Amino acid sequence: YKVLSLYGKNLVLAWPDQNVKSISDDSIEIKVEVKKPYILASNDWKKQPTIVNVKDVEIGGNKVVIAAGPCAVESEEQVLTTAKAVKRAGASLLRGGAYKPRTSPYSFQGLGDEGVKILRRVGDEVGLPIVTEIMDTRDSPIFKQYVDMIQIGARNAQNFSLLKEVGQLGKPVLLKRGMGNTVEEWLQAAEYILLEGNGNVVLCERGIRTFERSTRFTLDIGGMVAAKLMTHLPICADPSHPAGRRELVHSLALAAVAAGADMLLIEVHPTPEKALSDAEQQLTLESFEVLVNRIRDLTRALGRDV
Amino acid sequence: YKVLSLYGKNLVLAWPDQNVKSISDDSIEIKVEVKKPYILASNDWKKQPTIVNVKDVEIGGNKVVIAAGPCAVESEEQVLTTAKAVKRAGASLLRGGAYKPRTSPYSFQGLGDEGVKILRRVGDEVGLPIVTEIMDTRDSPIFKQYVDMIQIGARNAQNFSLLKEVGQLGKPVLLKRGMGNTVEEWLQAAEYILLEGNGNVVLCERGIRTFERSTRFTLDIGGMVAAKLMTHLPICADPSHPAGRRELVHSLALAAVAAGADMLLIEVHPTPEKALSDAEQQLTLESFEVLVNRIRDLTRALGRDV
Amino acid sequence: YKVLSLYGKNLVLAWPDQNVKSISDDSIEIKVEVKKPYILASNDWKKQPTIVNVKDVEIGGNKVVIAAGPCAVESEEQVLTTAKAVKRAGASLLRGGAYKPRTSPYSFQGLGDEGVKILRRVGDEVGLPIVTEIMDTRDSPIFKQYVDMIQIGARNAQNFSLLKEVGQLGKPVLLKRGMGNTVEEWLQAAEYILLEGNGNVVLCERGIRTFERSTRFTLDIGGMVAAKLMTHLPICADPSHPAGRRELVHSLALAAVAAGADMLLIEVHPTPEKALSDAEQQLTLESFEVLVNRIRDLTRALGRDV
Amino acid sequence: YKVLSLYGKNLVLAWPDQNVKSISDDSIEIKVEVKKPYILASNDWKKQPTIVNVKDVEIGGNKVVIAAGPCAVESEEQVLTTAKAVKRAGASLLRGGAYKPRTSPYSFQGLGDEGVKILRRVGDEVGLPIVTEIMDTRDSPIFKQYVDMIQIGARNAQNFSLLKEVGQLGKPVLLKRGMGNTVEEWLQAAEYILLEGNGNVVLCERGIRTFERSTRFTLDIGGMVAAKLMTHLPICADPSHPAGRRELVHSLALAAVAAGADMLLIEVHPTPEKALSDAEQQLTLESFEVLVNRIRDLTRALGRDV
Repeated sequence: YKVLSLYGKNLVLAWPDQNVKSISDDSIEIKVEVKKPYILASNDWKKQPTIVNVKDVEIGGNKVVIAAGPCAVESEEQVLTTAKAVKRAGASLLRGGAYKPRTSPYSFQGLGDEGVKILRRVGDEVGLPIVTEIMDTRDSPIFKQYVDMIQIGARNAQNFSLLKEVGQLGKPVLLKRGMGNTVEEWLQAAEYILLEGNGNVVLCERGIRTFERSTRFTLDIGGMVAAKLMTHLPICADPSHPAGRRELVHSLALAAVAAGADMLLIEVHPTPEKALSDAEQQLTLESFEVLVNRIRDLTRALGRDV
Repeated sequence: YKVLSLYGKNLVLAWPDQNVKSISDDSIEIKVEVKKPYILASNDWKKQPTIVNVKDVEIGGNKVVIAAGPCAVESEEQVLTTAKAVKRAGASLLRGGAYKPRTSPYSFQGLGDEGVKILRRVGDEVGLPIVTEIMDTRDSPIFKQYVDMIQIGARNAQNFSLLKEVGQLGKPVLLKRGMGNTVEEWLQAAEYILLEGNGNVVLCERGIRTFERSTRFTLDIGGMVAAKLMTHLPICADPSHPAGRRELVHSLALAAVAAGADMLLIEVHPTPEKALSDAEQQLTLESFEVLVNRIRDLTRALGRDV
Repeated sequence: YKVLSLYGKNLVLAWPDQNVKSISDDSIEIKVEVKKPYILASNDWKKQPTIVNVKDVEIGGNKVVIAAGPCAVESEEQVLTTAKAVKRAGASLLRGGAYKPRTSPYSFQGLGDEGVKILRRVGDEVGLPIVTEIMDTRDSPIFKQYVDMIQIGARNAQNFSLLKEVGQLGKPVLLKRGMGNTVEEWLQAAEYILLEGNGNVVLCERGIRTFERSTRFTLDIGGMVAAKLMTHLPICADPSHPAGRRELVHSLALAAVAAGADMLLIEVHPTPEKALSDAEQQLTLESFEVLVNRIRDLTRALGRDV
Repeated sequence: YKVLSLYGKNLVLAWPDQNVKSISDDSIEIKVEVKKPYILASNDWKKQPTIVNVKDVEIGGNKVVIAAGPCAVESEEQVLTTAKAVKRAGASLLRGGAYKPRTSPYSFQGLGDEGVKILRRVGDEVGLPIVTEIMDTRDSPIFKQYVDMIQIGARNAQNFSLLKEVGQLGKPVLLKRGMGNTVEEWLQAAEYILLEGNGNVVLCERGIRTFERSTRFTLDIGGMVAAKLMTHLPICADPSHPAGRRELVHSLALAAVAAGADMLLIEVHPTPEKALSDAEQQLTLESFEVLVNRIRDLTRALGRDV
């Protein structure tokens, strides 16, 4: 069994083969029996929705939070231009890749530490908390120092060492679903983080692998809705990666919000056609502004806000 | 090559190995070269969106059309109760299965001809055009006589004999995408119908087969949006079958409308728990009314209407 | 409930909601309760493997049966050349498509009745029983008169009207698995045929739809093996369609035989590069002969024969 | 561009946007232009098959190499019993998991360092080189010291930091395909390792995610064959994980060998029903011996050996 503190409570978790009643400790407020492959991430245990705070941004409340920014950090100027524009349009978080998991080793691999520092400076200047992806357990010191919300990418969605590491860091985590993972596996990945005592997890649906070829991945809106019924954690949707091309991003973003997403993660670039990665799917600054206005109209009809 | 009349125009279609210029005929208004696996269903040829009329109901215009009714026609009373309620709530079409394609031969196989006639009587009484599924080319006379819109189900999505037959009948067709078919194959299935001179086709996304198990099928919102960019035909979404359970239907329906669906096909039953098929996913009459109100709010935010 | 004669026995089948004990009839030899979505196709009921006889060819016994021939019947000469060569190499059945289910209406649609008659004449001349695909219930008279084994293609794998029709014809059926169907759905499709009293069904795995793109479909060897553990019916593999290109056909055919396939269905053409369909995946006559010799060596190692 | 030594040659690799001709260096024997997402792993560049040596075991030659052992190292006795039995039956490598990537954090997580050391001691005692999985870049020292062949598991198949790390270690790598990865992505993962100058990579197919549920994963024999046509690297198949249950393992193993696999990775346990992980799919010692004998017969028919 394990004793941990989560959401301000002291818990004891009894493993499937243990009897929770035999564990006694005065400081324990909740006793939880692990009766399925995950429990901390489920709403069997915690009924009320969790709100994850990234600095002053609340994810999981009434507002739909938009994180926007370039696929990859390419230069301070590029990030600054983008950050100012997305903030003005209505984004609450700045995203950008510094360590980039690229399918081919010959693709642009990102600026690494330098990219993280650029994001930090721009985030501070513009006034947006930053979210960026970690790829290696050995990089945790720099993420601890500089980053507000740590992203686990789809390709590391079952990198359990990395999940434990970000669990221990305690910072808010944006956990993408693996392109070959079921909803249940996604929740179990979150469980790895929660089990380290870090409850600040936002789940992010970004498309799964299917036979369909007119889109890059298949955004699984149904899986996202099913997950919402199973967990207390907030849910984000990334419409950019499944779209694979700009023309589809608006519709997928609107669909995700209508289905109940608490957050959107959108790729925006000042000059997408010159981007060093994902050139086809990044929105222009203008198109992003139009999208935020459409989302704002939609959320009002749904009784929410941006 | 083939000469046909479609959308009020006389066309000549030149096969890939033919030169359209060599075909001369004074009555021909448009010459179309088949340069990809489908052309009549694409918006390369016909730019303006097609509106399909089912009696006085326009599909593909500004209004989002809702077709609702039971999975299977079980009795006249069941259909009448449902029809009155869904009409009052805002549905424009009455759906119901008479010939039922059931995976197991031991499942309820539908009332057949008698089911079609019940639908017809109820549709006339309540004032809703009816849509129901055809499974066999030999049944075309009864569909010609009684049915307003003929549905091709997912399991017959590449039953090319049946596609040609409904093409020749000339009535409006609701063409479901096969659970194992790409968007491109779906459009080619529509092409079979159009090539018989029947342009009254509405495409219906109803979920594809993927590895995900928390939903019955994966509603491919991205594929639906991709299709909209490729075709002039209206697009419908069926949120009931991919959901597989009631709790997911509202969110999937809202997502589909937000993504641009022109029509929804929703299963509704007065007492879903007693239904002879799809008991898990049919909405109650009350839940359907709530859903229509939510859709109405959403469409207004999008500049459309129900 | 239903009373039927199958494999020389009089059966009574009790539906899930019926008590088989209450049904009494002196002529009934076996009482079967339908406790899962299929029973007649399962080996819960019939333990010993079924042998399907197509004229003098036994499918499901110790010999691995090879059916070979062109994707499509194009001319009598083409079929005759192929038939002579495949028979000499070791094939026991002649395959060829007359009615062709083509994804695009602009692809070669087959010779229809005339194609069936060509196959019949060539089969008789060369001394090979013939197998060809039916697409429409209305074509059953010509299949009854001319064809030895009727194929249900992947696109009609859940065309239940057609399954019932070939069930009533009583002739041997080669039932392909649909590209989007589970093994359990495939067995239920067979159940539709058996329930009409026709037990002469061979199941054919031909590849399923997955995200992988280096092959046309994913030959599901595991699903084929799982099916063998669930049914008494013989199992065939079609290596040509999942391969999608000639270079892969030999290896897939050998894999299927090693995994326990009772039959192979292979596309062979005298001049594949000039074929009117599936030009990429048909074997040359020479390559087919090499393959049969490789299969012969393999079957001996497995204690079987060709 | 990058200069590296691989397979005993000095290479220069020119990135897609570079002209290889402008790079001059007397020590360079081969100039390679990166014209697709991978080149070092492809047989465009290196025609002859690569043989990977793990101590005295040759993978990729005429013999089919069998690696066998328990899913997880549980105790020295368990591993020793298994190792002796699998060696006697014909295995050439000992496998066993010490660091275990488990979907649920509540499943047995492996013995870690201690497990690696047990494997080492048993391997030395019995005389079998050992293969075990790495999960974290921080563990590379222990793998460098103790392990003969390092496995990258399916869940880390696109953990690019880990791929680079094992590339730098220089030891033989068994690289599993991710359950959601295409063949092309798998080859690009290998490229990450080769690009660090480590050419000792064996590719391992272990099943992909599809809609089929009668097996745990779908063993993609076609993808394996397609890969063999694209690469010079040896290919391994893991029949245990896609099977998910013992009864299917023999047939899948035989199919993989018939299709051309150079190596098999098989889970074997002295008492599978008591195993701490994958209890359903591990073979007993007796069943493994039967399987090796069947494989031996098969390989002889194919002109190979075990």
